[in-house]
Amino acid sequence: MKRRLSRAARRALRRLLRDRFLEEEAACLAYAYDASGLIRVPEAVALPENTEEVSRILTLSYEEEFPVTPRGAGTATTGAPLAPEGGLVLCLSRMNRILEINPEDLVAVVEPGVVNARLKEALARRGLFYPPDPASFRFSTIGGNVATCAGGPRGLKYGVTRDYVLGLEAVLPGGEVLSLGVRTLKGVVGYDLTRLLVGSEGTLAVFTRITLKVLPLPPSRGTLAAGFTDEESALSAMQEVLSRGVLPAAAEFMDRVTLSATGFPEREVHGLLLFEFDGPEAAVKEDLERTRHLLAGKTRFLKEARGAEAEGLWEIRRGISPALRKLGARRFADDVVLPRSRLSFFLKEVRRLSAETGLTVACFGHAGDGNLHVNILFEPEAEPRARTLREKILSLVLELSGTLSGEHGVGLTKKAYLPAEVPPAGLSLMRELKRLFDPKGLLNPEKVL
Amino acid sequence: MKRRLSRAARRALRRLLRDRFLEEEAACLAYAYDASGLIRVPEAVALPENTEEVSRILTLSYEEEFPVTPRGAGTATTGAPLAPEGGLVLCLSRMNRILEINPEDLVAVVEPGVVNARLKEALARRGLFYPPDPASFRFSTIGGNVATCAGGPRGLKYGVTRDYVLGLEAVLPGGEVLSLGVRTLKGVVGYDLTRLLVGSEGTLAVFTRITLKVLPLPPSRGTLAAGFTDEESALSAMQEVLSRGVLPAAAEFMDRVTLSATGFPEREVHGLLLFEFDGPEAAVKEDLERTRHLLAGKTRFLKEARGAEAEGLWEIRRGISPALRKLGARRFADDVVLPRSRLSFFLKEVRRLSAETGLTVACFGHAGDGNLHVNILFEPEAEPRARTLREKILSLVLELSGTLSGEHGVGLTKKAYLPAEVPPAGLSLMRELKRLFDPKGLLNPEKVL
Repeated sequence: MKRRLSRAARRALRRLLRDRFLEEEAACLAYAYDASGLIRVPEAVALPENTEEVSRILTLSYEEEFPVTPRGAGTATTGAPLAPEGGLVLCLSRMNRILEINPEDLVAVVEPGVVNARLKEALARRGLFYPPDPASFRFSTIGGNVATCAGGPRGLKYGVTRDYVLGLEAVLPGGEVLSLGVRTLKGVVGYDLTRLLVGSEGTLAVFTRITLKVLPLPPSRGTLAAGFTDEESALSAMQEVLSRGVLPAAAEFMDRVTLSATGFPEREVHGLLLFEFDGPEAAVKEDLERTRHLLAGKTRFLKEARGAEAEGLWEIRRGISPALRKLGARRFADDVVLPRSRLSFFLKEVRRLSAETGLTVACFGHAGDGNLHVNILFEPEAEPRARTLREKILSLVLELSGTLSGEHGVGLTKKAYLPAEVPPAGLSLMRELKRLFDPKGLLNPEKVL
Repeated sequence: MKRRLSRAARRALRRLLRDRFLEEEAACLAYAYDASGLIRVPEAVALPENTEEVSRILTLSYEEEFPVTPRGAGTATTGAPLAPEGGLVLCLSRMNRILEINPEDLVAVVEPGVVNARLKEALARRGLFYPPDPASFRFSTIGGNVATCAGGPRGLKYGVTRDYVLGLEAVLPGGEVLSLGVRTLKGVVGYDLTRLLVGSEGTLAVFTRITLKVLPLPPSRGTLAAGFTDEESALSAMQEVLSRGVLPAAAEFMDRVTLSATGFPEREVHGLLLFEFDGPEAAVKEDLERTRHLLAGKTRFLKEARGAEAEGLWEIRRGISPALRKLGARRFADDVVLPRSRLSFFLKEVRRLSAETGLTVACFGHAGDGNLHVNILFEPEAEPRARTLREKILSLVLELSGTLSGEHGVGLTKKAYLPAEVPPAGLSLMRELKRLFDPKGLLNPEKVL
């Protein structure tokens, strides 16, 4: 199935958007990528600036029957914002106004193209805080974060994007504009359509306005980095800390492959934990002390850091994904989640499978909530072996009661594995939901299902 | 529309459940009530003990076309667990096993009939904590809590039930058993059917197993009660505390009508705030101190309490609803939510409307997250006036960007007001969703929509 943009559609889009409708291949190429490594050049790109324009584009999509793929900054790792069937990419990056920050109500209202970091900065100036912090937060948009239900290190204490979306203005396939949810901190009137749209990867509706719950900015933060001589000691020390009632804002893990790729200076450290604590100063101090105490005698390296120094440690963490590039021209990157008690066993099995196949596997991520980024790194000729390894690892995740994705979503790259996790009755309900929202199947087609 | 239980259905249910199938009116009467004041006697009551039995009952409902109304402890305030069309009440109170508590994974798995307080106690013994705490928590079941997306005072810091449901086993109308969601702390594979079912008030599926996220039990708690000479000073003091970055677990408010009904001993106090702080001991101390400091010179009464003494203060709060009975034989009880900045204006308007109509209105609740319980108390003969007053108050809520329900849901008693809040396109999507899950309209019919 490949439906092209008709001449009438192109004419109407030119009239509507003028120089914000891109048709030249060179211009469209810039919208052909995300972080998955896939390339799909759209036929044209629309850069709407308001809800009305988005609505008219989706109306036109239904009249002229062309596919529309919504997109933010393109930091997805799954191909979700790519146009595999051609058609129009609807890029929301120009709808980037922060419409309201209300410290009294603890609410922020934004357009979908607002970059996560920009919102964080604007909030911090008012003493407020939006916790979800995907590694891409300096570039990725709130719209994209909502579409994937993005997480990040702080998920352990603060939950994920879903927990902060109070209301949405969304345009349905066919062009209808719908206001969903509330701008209050609670609300249970009718079915929860708001959260049905969170994580729907742009396949059910296009967000044009997002109402978020925000929190008071924790007055203090502290980071503790703890290095271990092996990965297993690191994971069991983390378990020890967390099971003693300490609740850090984040508990990140890096395995030895990751540490070596990022050039971590302590050569004898083969497993690293990075804890962040936040809250009132006294609480942060107490948490840091308790954690040091619980780790006493187990670490090869221990460093407490505040402020800019702590930021430096977190920059190592955020630099992992680019650093891994040198370990292989290609990669399969999955963000599996395991019950925390199974992480250690899982990692041992991954090491065994990696040794068996001779392929490099890097594991790092939000181990505090069981969410591990598993990267298989390989040269193009090893792809069949890498694929087999990936399938073995994903099966293992499901055997251990895990899930195939904690924050990246399904998009194109994980579609094939969906039936391994979601039972047939669930898949069929999801397909019917998709038909209910998008009977012509024109909004971000071929994704997720 | 009223479909009766056929003879064949009764026979089949007797065979399946034996003495756990109740047909005598006297027995059925016990399932005719909830906390709404409505009475609807079901034709029969089923007390299943496992998923298989629930599935067979819902299969039978589709074959023999009789309505089924799921029910927990019956603490709903909206008539949601009543059988207005007759048919079968499916009471899940015997499915009350705590199946798993896993401190390493921070997960608990329960059957729907487990009472919230029993789960809390079992978790506390393992150093764990399930935050949602509706006032009914000593009686209400987790199944009912999930069906209504129950909240409670701790919503301010900890969110509501929706934020803790990771996965569900649910039986669909027609009898299919479906496993949804995950047992990990994150998961974004496919559409979020789990959270679509949370808050669906038993109209889309029957839960038979619930996987919950739990947290480490905060090591310390502290309560601060602050009394003011008028309601407005209380609300503005609360705003002052919360806008200074203090994040209590709860910030409750009681107005003068409520205080007088509960017999609060300090006669000059006409507005009361109840703060709860939790976390590491040092943090609790710091929060209590900061709050005392922010309230300095503003209060008529200030009392810090820990342990059993604090529990006493919270018992006053939980005793409000019964205490209000003496102010009127009947009541309209709404749990509206307002943007916090509008609470004070809202309360003034309510006072004005109350004076105009000569009817008593008590306002209390989770003012920290804008969620106020508004109770109009009246004698039966004043019902028409009370109804008009209720409608004025609900309109005011919507004018101020509020929502009609923060935690009770819609059920029967708020159905008429649904179109005032949800736009037609949203309602029509909800109706289609209902048809998708329940094409014959037999599961908890006439509720919500």
